[in-house]
Amino acid sequence: MKLTILGCHSATPRANAHPTSQVLDINGEFMLIDCGEGTQVRLRKHKVKFSRISHIFISHLHGDHYFGLIGLLSTFSLLSRTTELHIYAPQGLEEIIKLQLKLSHAFTSYPLIFHQLDSSHPELILDNDKLTVETIPLKHRVYTNGFLFKAKPGDRKLLIDKVQNLDIDKVYYKSIVKGKDVTTKSGELIKNEELTEDPKPAPSYAFCSDTIFKPDIVPQIKGVTLLYHESTFLEDQENLCDKTKHSTAKQAGIIAQKAGVQKLILGHFSARYKNLSLFEEEAKIVFDNVENAETGKIFRYE
Amino acid sequence: MKLTILGCHSATPRANAHPTSQVLDINGEFMLIDCGEGTQVRLRKHKVKFSRISHIFISHLHGDHYFGLIGLLSTFSLLSRTTELHIYAPQGLEEIIKLQLKLSHAFTSYPLIFHQLDSSHPELILDNDKLTVETIPLKHRVYTNGFLFKAKPGDRKLLIDKVQNLDIDKVYYKSIVKGKDVTTKSGELIKNEELTEDPKPAPSYAFCSDTIFKPDIVPQIKGVTLLYHESTFLEDQENLCDKTKHSTAKQAGIIAQKAGVQKLILGHFSARYKNLSLFEEEAKIVFDNVENAETGKIFRYE
Repeated sequence: MKLTILGCHSATPRANAHPTSQVLDINGEFMLIDCGEGTQVRLRKHKVKFSRISHIFISHLHGDHYFGLIGLLSTFSLLSRTTELHIYAPQGLEEIIKLQLKLSHAFTSYPLIFHQLDSSHPELILDNDKLTVETIPLKHRVYTNGFLFKAKPGDRKLLIDKVQNLDIDKVYYKSIVKGKDVTTKSGELIKNEELTEDPKPAPSYAFCSDTIFKPDIVPQIKGVTLLYHESTFLEDQENLCDKTKHSTAKQAGIIAQKAGVQKLILGHFSARYKNLSLFEEEAKIVFDNVENAETGKIFRYE
Repeated sequence: MKLTILGCHSATPRANAHPTSQVLDINGEFMLIDCGEGTQVRLRKHKVKFSRISHIFISHLHGDHYFGLIGLLSTFSLLSRTTELHIYAPQGLEEIIKLQLKLSHAFTSYPLIFHQLDSSHPELILDNDKLTVETIPLKHRVYTNGFLFKAKPGDRKLLIDKVQNLDIDKVYYKSIVKGKDVTTKSGELIKNEELTEDPKPAPSYAFCSDTIFKPDIVPQIKGVTLLYHESTFLEDQENLCDKTKHSTAKQAGIIAQKAGVQKLILGHFSARYKNLSLFEEEAKIVFDNVENAETGKIFRYE
């Protein structure tokens, strides 16, 4: 699992502070999460192949999370994309995109499939052979979801001494790691659990932006490998959280601590703060393994 | 008059090839012409004060000419703008912008006034004390206008020897340069033309993007100070012009030569060309004073 931060600042784009967007690579499946203005330029800059992106997840319809989408979709057409593209987004995005396409007398060169999100409960929205994706209901000024990505476990681990001792032909190894039992040359049936052990735990990623402090998400994101949680403000501006429906770095730390995640990434920093290391410091008071998002930063998990 | 190029490349944004956008400063009135994705970041980079922009002109509804607009309008609100903003654009843009504002539960902090363009003939769309703006009907795959900006002439030039010889009180100078006649101390009426001469010719700017070769615009743009004309292709790809409704550098040169403009600026270069100096060279065959647009380049005329 590899997470590339394309932008991690709030609202106003500035020369070096790009709005929210990330690419998550799980088992070779590329997913774009949010798509602020300029995302396509950042994708190019960080050498993410456009053609690898198969799914796009939009958390909510504030501009700093989706204004770059129509440009990216148009570029896909200019590049003659033909493979399906799935977009998971709140109600309204499909209408905007289709209106923009209509007014430019354009159509996409590829099937564009919208999946409208409108539930206030967690939903399983994608389940394929590589991963599952669930929504994480958040609370912001407009309808908002986070997303929980769980890689599917890889193949079972072959106990090579065992299979060699039983003189099992190599041709069966492929089916054994998939969990199949096998019959030896002498006709004895050997159960899979004698020949393999569990694969490594598969990594998972919870993306939570934008939201007020919402501890009721903790059970859903329990023990994830990586949690991105917005921290628009520091504690000194906690009074703004209520009005703007955002969180502080400390609140993000509390969520990480309660959920027992492996690592917390902070982002969506308000433009009012110049020294971003204060965010890490504040969250560290409650949760140790924390790191700020930065444009271009990559987080890898095997 | 000062023209700043914010982007001058066609369609696909790349790391260093930004889509169409320009800022024209005429007598302190700032006008934004087209607004491709990322324009607001380029405005900041080139230190154009957001608050000075009072009018935005959108030539047509292809994304590389307007996908940056909603982001800029949203940022104006974040910056608590209160002054009126006028947008001149083809039918449909108002619907897109209002839908996007509605879905983010947002409104602008300032009066946003749309002027819908739908005529196939030149129209006077702005006339204030500093300048006039007319549409230039172009021909592209969708309804498209260029824009002709004409600065108003400055004050008449005072013939200082004449007014001193006639012993005219200095208090009248201000009205004389505005074109008023004056009565001398001895009661004699002196006509303005005896006291002043014409001001310097006021500069003008014709923006023509995107369009097929369209010589019928020549009478309208006759003798302009500065002509920006798209040149998406070189002559070697002229066959693509018909299909895509674009022009070659040579065709832009022919328009400049026929209209007897002072200077021609080329832009909207297709991504297929790496050596952009070929555009200047090709246009020079028919018109000598030609220069390529470049991101960040500034053209000044007194």
